[in-house]
Amino acid sequence: MMIGRVVGEVVCTQKFRTYDRAKILQVELLDLKGKSRHFVMSAIDLVDSGPGDKVLVCLEGQSAVDAIGVEGNPVDAVIIGVIDEIKLIEDVN
Amino acid sequence: MMIGRVVGEVVCTQKFRTYDRAKILQVELLDLKGKSRHFVMSAIDLVDSGPGDKVLVCLEGQSAVDAIGVEGNPVDAVIIGVIDEIKLIEDVN
Amino acid sequence: MMIGRVVGEVVCTQKFRTYDRAKILQVELLDLKGKSRHFVMSAIDLVDSGPGDKVLVCLEGQSAVDAIGVEGNPVDAVIIGVIDEIKLIEDVN
Amino acid sequence: MMIGRVVGEVVCTQKFRTYDRAKILQVELLDLKGKSRHFVMSAIDLVDSGPGDKVLVCLEGQSAVDAIGVEGNPVDAVIIGVIDEIKLIEDVN
Amino acid sequence: MMIGRVVGEVVCTQKFRTYDRAKILQVELLDLKGKSRHFVMSAIDLVDSGPGDKVLVCLEGQSAVDAIGVEGNPVDAVIIGVIDEIKLIEDVN
Repeated sequence: MMIGRVVGEVVCTQKFRTYDRAKILQVELLDLKGKSRHFVMSAIDLVDSGPGDKVLVCLEGQSAVDAIGVEGNPVDAVIIGVIDEIKLIEDVN
Repeated sequence: MMIGRVVGEVVCTQKFRTYDRAKILQVELLDLKGKSRHFVMSAIDLVDSGPGDKVLVCLEGQSAVDAIGVEGNPVDAVIIGVIDEIKLIEDVN
Repeated sequence: MMIGRVVGEVVCTQKFRTYDRAKILQVELLDLKGKSRHFVMSAIDLVDSGPGDKVLVCLEGQSAVDAIGVEGNPVDAVIIGVIDEIKLIEDVN
Repeated sequence: MMIGRVVGEVVCTQKFRTYDRAKILQVELLDLKGKSRHFVMSAIDLVDSGPGDKVLVCLEGQSAVDAIGVEGNPVDAVIIGVIDEIKLIEDVN
Repeated sequence: MMIGRVVGEVVCTQKFRTYDRAKILQVELLDLKGKSRHFVMSAIDLVDSGPGDKVLVCLEGQSAVDAIGVEGNPVDAVIIGVIDEIKLIEDVN
């Protein structure tokens, strides 16, 4: 999984049928220090996350589809958690 | 999923049997500001998108295959939506 | 899928049992202008492509395996089409 | 699989239901010499690894889900081993 | 699939249960000319390859798991062939 921050929402009227109920968010990936990696992706929100939230993104499709409970739904990324804290071990080399 | 723009179409006469009905588009990936990432990929269109459309591309295979309803069809990317708008949260850091 | 050009063939005597019948080609990935991306990968040919052909490569495994009709065959890339033409929309920004 | 080092733990209160029991660790990827690749990812720990451990990370979802024994669990990376030693062949070119 | 060279072996005592019989090798990826790409990954050996061998690596999980015949085994890369020769078409542009 990757750490990211919710920076926007994608609005599509003309979309694939299984996406009617999906909330598609734009997520900017972050590095260990919380800085932007300058890489943005879209992910389906499974945990009711919102703008500015630091989130855990799972880059995966099939099991995510199972999780949503919609068959034949093409998905490659889902938001699976809102991050409270990342406990870092500073002195690890 | 990734944001991209339809920049062309791929024409193949000699192709794998399950691809007879597939419309294969060339998509240039875009960053958060809508600028080109200088990375192009091919994707099967599921939403009747056209040249110049800003689209949502799903980088995934198996569930996409299920979506198309053709068994044994190797697919790794499908266009699942035409994007109307990306609502950005400008002040998020 | 990615656009590439067939630049060679991989010959293995000592290989996994399900690969006996597979033709493994070396493919150099190309950008939108047809220039090399300086990235080479190996893919199983499903469409009888040959040296120098511009081809469509699917970076995917499970459904490709189904396509080949061999169970338990580890595959991550297949050539699914020989490209006749890529119709580009030049004036798209 | 990739070699990495456990550098932290991700704490989420608001998370997807199947993640209640998962221990999510932050792993920094390492190169052949054991130096950081400056790339961090999150992975579910399957082998009771801890801070500072050099670990083997599998970048894969569905079979990892099966391994955990929880259906409908979106996972894209699991820690599958704590590395004792990497025996390098120094003189290979 | 990718071309690589076996440069080492990974030794884990504390590992996931399905990995008891697996031989995990370190593979350095190579470019078309056989030069190092400076990228190393770990893969499960399916073809009894050894140190220094030039090998074909499949970056894939589920079907590889099926190939090994162990259920619930998280795998993302397997060595599927020892390469005898790569026949290059030098004059292809």
